[in-house]
Amino acid sequence: MIIIMGTGASPAQVEQVQERLRGWGFDIHFSQGVERTIIGAVGARKDPAMAPMLEAMEGVERVVHILTPYKLAGREFKGEPTRIRVGPVTIGGPRVVIIAGPCAVEDCGQIVGTAKAVKAAGADMLRGGAYKPRSSPYAFQGLEEEGLKLLAQARAETGLPVVTEVLNPRDVELVAEYADMLQIGARNMQNFILLREVGRARRPVLLKRGLAATTEEWLMSAEYILSEGNYDVVLCERGIRTYETSTRNTLDISAVPIIKRLSHLPILVDPSHGTGKRALVAPLARAAVAAGGDGILVEVHPSPETALSDGPQSLTFDDFRQMMDGLRRVAAAVGREM
Amino acid sequence: MIIIMGTGASPAQVEQVQERLRGWGFDIHFSQGVERTIIGAVGARKDPAMAPMLEAMEGVERVVHILTPYKLAGREFKGEPTRIRVGPVTIGGPRVVIIAGPCAVEDCGQIVGTAKAVKAAGADMLRGGAYKPRSSPYAFQGLEEEGLKLLAQARAETGLPVVTEVLNPRDVELVAEYADMLQIGARNMQNFILLREVGRARRPVLLKRGLAATTEEWLMSAEYILSEGNYDVVLCERGIRTYETSTRNTLDISAVPIIKRLSHLPILVDPSHGTGKRALVAPLARAAVAAGGDGILVEVHPSPETALSDGPQSLTFDDFRQMMDGLRRVAAAVGREM
Amino acid sequence: MIIIMGTGASPAQVEQVQERLRGWGFDIHFSQGVERTIIGAVGARKDPAMAPMLEAMEGVERVVHILTPYKLAGREFKGEPTRIRVGPVTIGGPRVVIIAGPCAVEDCGQIVGTAKAVKAAGADMLRGGAYKPRSSPYAFQGLEEEGLKLLAQARAETGLPVVTEVLNPRDVELVAEYADMLQIGARNMQNFILLREVGRARRPVLLKRGLAATTEEWLMSAEYILSEGNYDVVLCERGIRTYETSTRNTLDISAVPIIKRLSHLPILVDPSHGTGKRALVAPLARAAVAAGGDGILVEVHPSPETALSDGPQSLTFDDFRQMMDGLRRVAAAVGREM
Amino acid sequence: MIIIMGTGASPAQVEQVQERLRGWGFDIHFSQGVERTIIGAVGARKDPAMAPMLEAMEGVERVVHILTPYKLAGREFKGEPTRIRVGPVTIGGPRVVIIAGPCAVEDCGQIVGTAKAVKAAGADMLRGGAYKPRSSPYAFQGLEEEGLKLLAQARAETGLPVVTEVLNPRDVELVAEYADMLQIGARNMQNFILLREVGRARRPVLLKRGLAATTEEWLMSAEYILSEGNYDVVLCERGIRTYETSTRNTLDISAVPIIKRLSHLPILVDPSHGTGKRALVAPLARAAVAAGGDGILVEVHPSPETALSDGPQSLTFDDFRQMMDGLRRVAAAVGREM
Repeated sequence: MIIIMGTGASPAQVEQVQERLRGWGFDIHFSQGVERTIIGAVGARKDPAMAPMLEAMEGVERVVHILTPYKLAGREFKGEPTRIRVGPVTIGGPRVVIIAGPCAVEDCGQIVGTAKAVKAAGADMLRGGAYKPRSSPYAFQGLEEEGLKLLAQARAETGLPVVTEVLNPRDVELVAEYADMLQIGARNMQNFILLREVGRARRPVLLKRGLAATTEEWLMSAEYILSEGNYDVVLCERGIRTYETSTRNTLDISAVPIIKRLSHLPILVDPSHGTGKRALVAPLARAAVAAGGDGILVEVHPSPETALSDGPQSLTFDDFRQMMDGLRRVAAAVGREM
Repeated sequence: MIIIMGTGASPAQVEQVQERLRGWGFDIHFSQGVERTIIGAVGARKDPAMAPMLEAMEGVERVVHILTPYKLAGREFKGEPTRIRVGPVTIGGPRVVIIAGPCAVEDCGQIVGTAKAVKAAGADMLRGGAYKPRSSPYAFQGLEEEGLKLLAQARAETGLPVVTEVLNPRDVELVAEYADMLQIGARNMQNFILLREVGRARRPVLLKRGLAATTEEWLMSAEYILSEGNYDVVLCERGIRTYETSTRNTLDISAVPIIKRLSHLPILVDPSHGTGKRALVAPLARAAVAAGGDGILVEVHPSPETALSDGPQSLTFDDFRQMMDGLRRVAAAVGREM
Repeated sequence: MIIIMGTGASPAQVEQVQERLRGWGFDIHFSQGVERTIIGAVGARKDPAMAPMLEAMEGVERVVHILTPYKLAGREFKGEPTRIRVGPVTIGGPRVVIIAGPCAVEDCGQIVGTAKAVKAAGADMLRGGAYKPRSSPYAFQGLEEEGLKLLAQARAETGLPVVTEVLNPRDVELVAEYADMLQIGARNMQNFILLREVGRARRPVLLKRGLAATTEEWLMSAEYILSEGNYDVVLCERGIRTYETSTRNTLDISAVPIIKRLSHLPILVDPSHGTGKRALVAPLARAAVAAGGDGILVEVHPSPETALSDGPQSLTFDDFRQMMDGLRRVAAAVGREM
Repeated sequence: MIIIMGTGASPAQVEQVQERLRGWGFDIHFSQGVERTIIGAVGARKDPAMAPMLEAMEGVERVVHILTPYKLAGREFKGEPTRIRVGPVTIGGPRVVIIAGPCAVEDCGQIVGTAKAVKAAGADMLRGGAYKPRSSPYAFQGLEEEGLKLLAQARAETGLPVVTEVLNPRDVELVAEYADMLQIGARNMQNFILLREVGRARRPVLLKRGLAATTEEWLMSAEYILSEGNYDVVLCERGIRTYETSTRNTLDISAVPIIKRLSHLPILVDPSHGTGKRALVAPLARAAVAAGGDGILVEVHPSPETALSDGPQSLTFDDFRQMMDGLRRVAAAVGREM
């Protein structure tokens, strides 16, 4: 930690800061510049409460953090990329993993039909929502446990492992019974109750980036899960909120190489929510793989124009097959399998 | 709903859209322009799934919504401003309501001392967190039920009604036993499980705006609570996330008159989270009242430099008294009591 | 400057950084932490090119700036608030200055009529565009020199000093002949050619904040003007671009107290562009004054529904009179004249 | 245009709107819904001033635009992709065009050396700034005409066509004498004086996206140039401003397929400014090509740690060669040449 004192800071204020740092066990590196006094605090274990306490002291202008606030999620904790197994699938290895399926599970024909179609086209896993977070209380909220059963049936018929979102901390155990991987949606990225709960589950977790989350906040949310003992966390970039309205969100492809530098966790990209428009899904999926993404999460529906949610961004089976063809060539070009 | 067809839309595509609208029971107003076909759909009950289904159809460029997606929260449902009673306090009436207290309840002396000080300076209600949503799993997470008990004690000693945040759907009942008003924090504005749960509680709810929520999404979250039968919802603007880093968030004061036009619900402003800096709290509190806000939610701590959270934005007792003096004059200038 | 080395930085890389700093004449404060090496550079004159050069060196993680990049615009250069005279008007003193008028000068009746009406209601200065920056090449671009002449006529008939926008560096001299104050619009805040040009003019400058400008960038643009010898710069907050679409821009009222802390320059607020909606202008104008703004820039038009630009956000004469009444009370409440 | 009347609109207000539309020559398609009146205006030539005038009328809630505000830049004006010739290079054809060079021209050795190195590695064009827009008035502002001469010399020695930024409308002719292509930088995207000036020059124009520009505003700026008769406009995505601070800007890769759908103009991507970090340039360049970009604009410097600007995001010659190898494979994977 580096404490930068304001120009008007009095010697007494400077001394109070140093006293406090010493009390916390820090060694002090003192630096008197022409216009500012700078105090370096070295050595003691840092507590998240310290910096705000210092910033609230008279005469302190700001506190600069040297170390990242996350530990277990960081590259400094673990240099090697983490590989996460979900049934027969490995995420974070040489293979670009494709997870496909409808936004919401609607009925047996829809989910089993989609599972078969995406498997035939080369998908590795099936996605589908049984519990849907909807901005309107009047919108379809998912089939709930019935939806989980249909996902399990689709897995039984295709062998594809299943990922599905969990919304309620109370449901984590139930969802974990049916699903191979638990999804935390963007709106719940900072639902810390839920993060702790999936941290105690024995299922890998797919953690979507929040709508307006910085990469640091995102890794801190991963840290919540890791710190409960669940090390199987896969990150998923799904677009951030910006002023631009020609896409539903702005897909932040640069998050892929940034996360790769900061963390050992795998990262997928969701071009469906990231763009909100079917025609943009394939080019952005290619971009994500070209940038080094470990896989793609994509919405596919047998007939998007009857989908109970997210139809405009859902691929048809044909769209999906074409996307896969293009993706395979790009994956090969960057030395990945598919 | 108005459906705007793309330039290349075929007559068959135009016909399919009309057929579908007729099937749903809409009357059709057809308008053939030089470059575009426009289809107006009038009369039938709209379902939130319809617009995305239409947008997913071939040939459709976009769907324009005419009506707001919220009903109970809107001015068209209820023209009069709603007044909400929290113990002896009325929010949404002529009085500018001041809710003050520490970010987190830390111990008996801190919370009772703060309650007495803010009451003496004219506060109407006490705030204080017993359950704290923290971006770091290693940060202080609140005293939990012990914190609720201390809040109840502070109320007993001062008569100030208490508002406190609830994070876990499981805790709603417990928190409602101790608190006079339940707070939904910014990070949980779209935690729909929690919204439904407080919608069933018999306590007024303070609903903070999400970090990157539009006013429409915010009112839709209020709608979740209202649609469960709890009509006592107070909105609270607390800053949105923008590119600007000189404040913690950008306090969107214009949300006050906008909400007043769209909704009958009262709206408070939180200049502490909205700015993150003690020196900015008083000027922004004055701005909020001048713009028509129904009250202020503000962080006060006996010694901000030892606060376990949010010290840099917490007012001292002295700061608070000064802020109140300035605020009273502005309230009078805009015809409000304080 | 503080240089934070990356975790993997080699002793040779650390040495190279120090050598370079010594070469530039800095004293070095060296601090070896457990995980990071920190190098403080003290004493020498800083050049804007130095930090990027250091950041481009192997092993360097980032460079932390201690001093502000602006000098003449900063509080450390001049502690007292600057007062700027525009004809008989003083901006930055006890008086809240009201500048009102149409977006664009359209004809003699419109501009002279508006000038008389706003003067009668208490305005201090007249605004009106003769050169209009329009996002469409097909939109009305202003009356140009004819517009300047009409502004001069309106001044002659009312005594109100005139502020008008200049777009083209070539026109600065011409505009300065007619106008009492030169406006740099939001889109030109980083048009450095134009900034230098008005820096050499002998007229006060109204510098609007760019659409997505940080407060630091804004003050750096003021620095361009000041560094050319023109010390009469007035800042104007006019809303920033955010994800929120219910207003044209998000008016950042907190910029008022922030600028007051960082700079000695006066700051006005433009609630017309800041909101884009007539009904929001008066409440936000009150908020701006309550927060400590030195004045208001507001659009007024005799018949907004025929305005060649910005009609939806223009006040009628009646609206303006009502706004002034409310504003006077708020100004008095915060100890200002009007 | 569709005019949506407010719920409280009176019959007289509805009639006034219709009268006005008829006066402008529109046919009216009237639609009376349960809660709202909708008025469609068909047939007449639309003027940009009409919609704001209507929105300023009593009773009008909002105006929905059906047609795009740009004409010449749109796909509806010209269905085929435009190919633009810059000397021997064609932008917008099958070839992915690589434009490389330093941020600023510093001296002969630097620019000629870089030109030779990037040419050897496969670059098609040379970039380099002679006039630099810098946020600080105290930073290096470029070598000006001397820089242009050095660029011409680099072209003479390598055969690479040259693109360089023009800042001052007065300099357009001079820059056009030396350069093969004129660059309009992000900060000048809405400097309409400059846009008109390059619209009259006989050189192709590289138009960078503004820091906070929507795709529509960007195409409107292209329209300014096209409407002056210069049809050779190449767009360049270079990152937009968002809340995320781990990159200098957020590179909006989805702009590539969006622009391809809306416009016939070619689009390049600048991953150097888009990320601000050397390590992110190559992955984002690959993403841009995978998404369908027509080329890459990238900063290369012989020794980034001595660069007078943008060192941290500049590639070394080695970095550039490696990037090119990766890019060639991705280009081939998406069916492009390089």
